[in-house]
Amino acid sequence: MPLQFASRLDNVETSAIRELFKLLGKPGIISFAGGFPDSAMFDVEGLREASQKALAEEPGAALQYGATEGYDPLRAQLAAFEQGKGVQGLEPQQLIVTTGSQQALDLLGKTLISPGDKVIVEGPTFLATIQCFRLYGADLVSAPIDSNGVDVERLEALIREHKPRFVYLIPTFGNPSGALLSLERRRKVLELAVKYQTLIVEDDPYGDLYFTPGPPPPSMLALSHEVPGSRDWLAHCGSLSKVLSPGLRVGWLVAPTELLAKATMCKQFSDAHTSTFAQATAAQYLRSGRMPATLERVRQVYAERAQAMGESLQRELGDAIEFTQPQGGLFFWARLTGAGGKTSDAAEFAKRAIEKGVAFVPGAPFFAKEPDRSSLRLSFATADVGKIREGVARLGAALAS
Amino acid sequence: MPLQFASRLDNVETSAIRELFKLLGKPGIISFAGGFPDSAMFDVEGLREASQKALAEEPGAALQYGATEGYDPLRAQLAAFEQGKGVQGLEPQQLIVTTGSQQALDLLGKTLISPGDKVIVEGPTFLATIQCFRLYGADLVSAPIDSNGVDVERLEALIREHKPRFVYLIPTFGNPSGALLSLERRRKVLELAVKYQTLIVEDDPYGDLYFTPGPPPPSMLALSHEVPGSRDWLAHCGSLSKVLSPGLRVGWLVAPTELLAKATMCKQFSDAHTSTFAQATAAQYLRSGRMPATLERVRQVYAERAQAMGESLQRELGDAIEFTQPQGGLFFWARLTGAGGKTSDAAEFAKRAIEKGVAFVPGAPFFAKEPDRSSLRLSFATADVGKIREGVARLGAALAS
Repeated sequence: MPLQFASRLDNVETSAIRELFKLLGKPGIISFAGGFPDSAMFDVEGLREASQKALAEEPGAALQYGATEGYDPLRAQLAAFEQGKGVQGLEPQQLIVTTGSQQALDLLGKTLISPGDKVIVEGPTFLATIQCFRLYGADLVSAPIDSNGVDVERLEALIREHKPRFVYLIPTFGNPSGALLSLERRRKVLELAVKYQTLIVEDDPYGDLYFTPGPPPPSMLALSHEVPGSRDWLAHCGSLSKVLSPGLRVGWLVAPTELLAKATMCKQFSDAHTSTFAQATAAQYLRSGRMPATLERVRQVYAERAQAMGESLQRELGDAIEFTQPQGGLFFWARLTGAGGKTSDAAEFAKRAIEKGVAFVPGAPFFAKEPDRSSLRLSFATADVGKIREGVARLGAALAS
Repeated sequence: MPLQFASRLDNVETSAIRELFKLLGKPGIISFAGGFPDSAMFDVEGLREASQKALAEEPGAALQYGATEGYDPLRAQLAAFEQGKGVQGLEPQQLIVTTGSQQALDLLGKTLISPGDKVIVEGPTFLATIQCFRLYGADLVSAPIDSNGVDVERLEALIREHKPRFVYLIPTFGNPSGALLSLERRRKVLELAVKYQTLIVEDDPYGDLYFTPGPPPPSMLALSHEVPGSRDWLAHCGSLSKVLSPGLRVGWLVAPTELLAKATMCKQFSDAHTSTFAQATAAQYLRSGRMPATLERVRQVYAERAQAMGESLQRELGDAIEFTQPQGGLFFWARLTGAGGKTSDAAEFAKRAIEKGVAFVPGAPFFAKEPDRSSLRLSFATADVGKIREGVARLGAALAS
């Protein structure tokens, strides 16, 4: 008799994307496939100083077990970071530190989802969210989006129909959509939360990565003080991964009191606490005052790359592809139109692209339901402008082949 | 309508011990309550150098996203570390790095336990294991132990009766029992695993913390090559928390191939990967060659403290308490005998002890079933010899009061 596994594993499968990533080792490949920031952007010197200070000033705290809720000086820094982005009245004890924002999703799943519960997500949404929630038995419902984010009328109808346990959104430069939820829709979503007493989960790892002409609309967490009662129905996941370093695994979760307490209990039995060494380093870094300059630099570099990718796509693929130029984040979301008799099957296109020496991710796996097989995601984060032009030229050749 | 939580939360409660810990802030308290190592033992200088080297030599790897399985140079070091303790034929790819060994428990729960499944644990066992497995719906069965570890005849009967999903043991200086599973029983447990095709989970965070006269019997992982087929039914959780630093949150899981693959998939959606900064630091530390001297120092200090605690308990509490002198680890496990009309209720004793300025943890919460209310756990790890003598004197006064 072989080993028997838990029934919850029947709901998930190894990702098709993971298989694709195995091909990326091929020499000379230009990759638009990753979902990660450019290592060259990391402020290694600033993080080196921060880690040294942490070990010099507070070696006990940096190396010993810590509170499950997180290291208090970091919680204070993160609350101040959110306040700097317009969030009002956020006390450090209203957030917990998580092992990357992936763990915040896991804790929300563990805390909230009973097998069979409905959860509304965007179509498309973050792949690891789909799998994470399915492991807790969620029955996912997909709400359609456009370039202004989730369609709030359809969302309201779906909330009414499915009475979901919660609604999960990436309102700002979403992965994979790159879409930006408009201010008007943000307000409407918060009103829906209150009206239907339905929790909204705002996942916001990309909000700091905006390009010109300036910051996007405030996060729903920042906006919540304008919509009475909405803070009671809002959870917010933040992360240092895209702006400072994913390797620290420092994210945070803001949530209503009782939910935060339950998530903390679940975290206690998940990993006890997030690395105190990483937490003390992050706290020292935020205290050092280097963050604004780091953000400025990262925004500028990614803005140039996004610009180059948009121009190249238009030039090389013309009317065979359609997309909205992203105003921030790491991703282009595009659709193959099939114009000129070219393929509109993104998986087929991905295979041909690999042969031509360029990689991207087909969009279908990002849909919890009813995948759009003509969609694809292109990251402009890790290739420089020259590589982006060359890579998109290869895409053009692949589509013509 | 208030927020609704997942049904799995009905199976757990906030720990009584957590409440007790809130009292530890009282000035002048001597604490035998913690389950953590002494911060003064940390090799801060060695870890400082290791973290600097990690950032200097491999900043990309130390700060970027990493493989869910773990950072390969660390996996190689950990495999070598296990080989140094007699484990044969362990390849780096047969282990994954976990965010502390707590996460290994969480991944085993997520991967293996369907609601209602039976899991056998020792009575008493690690409190966070009980809660962790219950969150996945486990119905825990308690196997009795003595000072030689789990009673293997009773264990066999329980395996036969309950056909558990797996058996969870802390065979070496267990928390809270301090017990050491004898060599003969270790062999027998491995034979039971093969005979009943039942997975054994060996949790081994304390095995390196042995006192005179030398190392304990080999871990079941090391012994498995002597029992044909047993490696297919054995998972092993290791940790750097008790010997190097809990704050790094670096543990590891060795498991049969298919189980390791499923656990890796679950980890992907739990926290993506363990902090690469912590992993690269740990890898550099293990490579630096400082570990043997660190282990030697830690063993010596804890051995002196264990000696002092044993002598003091005998002197101050006499026949009102019974215990076996531990040969390693961090804990004394003791029973109040009620001799001389003194209380045999450990919770009552704990309250009186706090009044006298000393803290410990009552044993009852460590039992998944049928708690022994006369039992208690005393940690000798964090107080020095003078404090241990003074603290135990206070225990004597509290028991006499």
